Amino acid sequence: MSLSPELTQKILAEVAAGFEEQIAFTEALGRYPSLRGQEHTAQDFLHDALKTRGYAMDRWAIDVDEIRHHPGFSPVTVDYSNAINVVGTLRPREETGRSLVLNGHIDVVPTGPLEMWSAPPFEPHRDGDWLYGRGVADMKAGIAANVFAVDALARLGYRPAATLYQQSVVEEECTGNGALAALLRGYRADAAIIPEPVDDKLVRANTGVLWFRVRVQGVPVHVREAGSGANAIEAAYELIRGLRELEAAWNARKTDHRYFEELDHPINFNVGKIAGGDWASSVPAWCEFDCRIALYPGEKPAEAAREIEDHLRQVSESISFLANNPPEIVFNGFFAEGYVLEEGSEAEGTLARAHLSSYSAPMQSFVSPAYLDGRVFVIYGDTPCMVYGPVSEAIHGFDERVSLSSVKRITGTIALFIAEWCGLEEI
Amino acid sequence: MSLSPELTQKILAEVAAGFEEQIAFTEALGRYPSLRGQEHTAQDFLHDALKTRGYAMDRWAIDVDEIRHHPGFSPVTVDYSNAINVVGTLRPREETGRSLVLNGHIDVVPTGPLEMWSAPPFEPHRDGDWLYGRGVADMKAGIAANVFAVDALARLGYRPAATLYQQSVVEEECTGNGALAALLRGYRADAAIIPEPVDDKLVRANTGVLWFRVRVQGVPVHVREAGSGANAIEAAYELIRGLRELEAAWNARKTDHRYFEELDHPINFNVGKIAGGDWASSVPAWCEFDCRIALYPGEKPAEAAREIEDHLRQVSESISFLANNPPEIVFNGFFAEGYVLEEGSEAEGTLARAHLSSYSAPMQSFVSPAYLDGRVFVIYGDTPCMVYGPVSEAIHGFDERVSLSSVKRITGTIALFIAEWCGLEEI
Repeated sequence: MSLSPELTQKILAEVAAGFEEQIAFTEALGRYPSLRGQEHTAQDFLHDALKTRGYAMDRWAIDVDEIRHHPGFSPVTVDYSNAINVVGTLRPREETGRSLVLNGHIDVVPTGPLEMWSAPPFEPHRDGDWLYGRGVADMKAGIAANVFAVDALARLGYRPAATLYQQSVVEEECTGNGALAALLRGYRADAAIIPEPVDDKLVRANTGVLWFRVRVQGVPVHVREAGSGANAIEAAYELIRGLRELEAAWNARKTDHRYFEELDHPINFNVGKIAGGDWASSVPAWCEFDCRIALYPGEKPAEAAREIEDHLRQVSESISFLANNPPEIVFNGFFAEGYVLEEGSEAEGTLARAHLSSYSAPMQSFVSPAYLDGRVFVIYGDTPCMVYGPVSEAIHGFDERVSLSSVKRITGTIALFIAEWCGLEEI
Repeated sequence: MSLSPELTQKILAEVAAGFEEQIAFTEALGRYPSLRGQEHTAQDFLHDALKTRGYAMDRWAIDVDEIRHHPGFSPVTVDYSNAINVVGTLRPREETGRSLVLNGHIDVVPTGPLEMWSAPPFEPHRDGDWLYGRGVADMKAGIAANVFAVDALARLGYRPAATLYQQSVVEEECTGNGALAALLRGYRADAAIIPEPVDDKLVRANTGVLWFRVRVQGVPVHVREAGSGANAIEAAYELIRGLRELEAAWNARKTDHRYFEELDHPINFNVGKIAGGDWASSVPAWCEFDCRIALYPGEKPAEAAREIEDHLRQVSESISFLANNPPEIVFNGFFAEGYVLEEGSEAEGTLARAHLSSYSAPMQSFVSPAYLDGRVFVIYGDTPCMVYGPVSEAIHGFDERVSLSSVKRITGTIALFIAEWCGLEEI
């Protein structure tokens, strides 16, 4: 089943030969500011790049009505007109191998204050082994790796001997509805790879994630009567403190969850955005803040959501202003379960062999406390999905960067995986 | 010196006779959404209303360069192109009495969430004795009282026997630069009245006010690494808590300040606005919040500012993230001293007589923990300035309202004050 040493070396050499072009492609992708709601121009670029390569192309805007019934659906508060998924399909003459999805997400998170960046975030640049730019690590380098792994095989005269899908999806950073929409459009395969920036390792399990917005609203007054009104901004902080308590309680449960008991702090709560009030001299009448919290695989988002609501109600009851003005809680994004990639699958065995050839070192796995679209494949597609990708630093931060030597090896692994998993046929 | 009972009653009756028209005028003023930076349309309305009445009109945009040297100047972070002051001057044939400024501010504070209002804030409406609307109490009813007090005298065939200035200024809710600009344009008088909504009382003393913005900025990361970044929103709360400590320390000093020792809580700190972060799943890199704090009369803004900076530095040193990323503090508005209206002035005596006639009850004074433009007249113009105005509720809040019966009596007081202070001449 495994590849010959000669073919292995030929493939890795061809990946290396194409790597400068792959970096240029990654940089080109990185120049598109594919923030939420404006991913479509990057998707159009990718669509054309795949079409030129001979993929059969599919491009569509997510239709909420087509996915909202699904248990993996996350609530949406934005317009999806420009939430475009792109899938390219490469078919063999004869389907002799096992089919594969190569998936990546095109959406990137906001940059934060530009002055905190050493260089403009949407003008990728290299410095030694690092390629810098917003979304370059998370995860345009991965999308490029998917494309160039197949390209390397093509330059050697080969095509996968089973159907291969290149998926570029949106909404991975906020709902996971992009990958879900692709699944519900009918895309299925015998395995999937998502080259997220996960430090040259395989994700064994990850957390689910919930997003929610909490809004405090009450009666404001002139600050001269500060005692008679209640400050919504400071009331919000009582709730944030309460959510930190909930986080601690959930972390204490880690011993009940396989793979997570070894993590120091598997459940991360984050308050990521806040806005409140409108005038320094008015006691603020409102404050709202956006939160993210993780949940263990197997825990249902709806139950976790109820626990959050109950906890915030409890906190509110002890604070007179909040008791009179109970906070409003809206689940406005991720409503997603975590997953566990069961050990011992053939797909994982194949990936481990490919990794060993590419890295000359055994593949390690780890448990991630972050959301990953892998859950769509594993939980709802019953597909072994291997989230496996390059070394990075500061994703979601300033000066986000990806290690190019790592990307090259990851690309080699993916190319070898395709060769063994799908098999090869001559073009 | 005091007015005859007959003239007193004639004046009060004439104020009452014109009161329906005065309410309509107040409502018309209230329909202008004269928020900061967009006061000019209301000012144009007022300009025309005064011009029609025969005032000599002056209308100008505040020029920061003309006032920035003055110790009463507050820092400005906005464009003043539409920060228009309006002053109407009414001169007697012969200057036999004492001159007077009737001052009011046209700017209003933001409405906050519209759904918290029982009715649209810029569509004033009456319900019993209350007139509702944003800025109707604070202080368009006062501006109308100034105008209609003179109108009542005019209908009786009288004009003040000394120069009278109707001033409508901007920037009272944020810097006090509007009243300052009027002073520095040369407007001086023997006394001034500002009918702010102060519950039918005279302001004996008030606090100074400082505005400042605190910005926390640091290195964010993906929430999966929440431990390695520091949450700017939560760091901001440490600073807010620190400022509450400073507030307590300043309140403890009240015994050193005449008039303030009797107040329960003379120094109010307020965090009135907050914004931070941009993504629920990114540890926020920045957070900034807008504050207001009071200071006692006699305390210099620059010294208080230094104390705030020192205190925040101290708080920051105990928090590793803030120690590495010290908060930035910008004084971005009020940089204003408080004032004391010395007891026993002739102007106050005149006002007390007028009040007694209008209310059939002695005038009371009180100490206000709020900023007032009176400080410009008292401290920098050496002019007895009487902040004295109607009963209100919920200024800076929702459903702001002013008592119409109170406004009528205040207008009567002002008309009687003019008659005695300026004297009257027949038109």
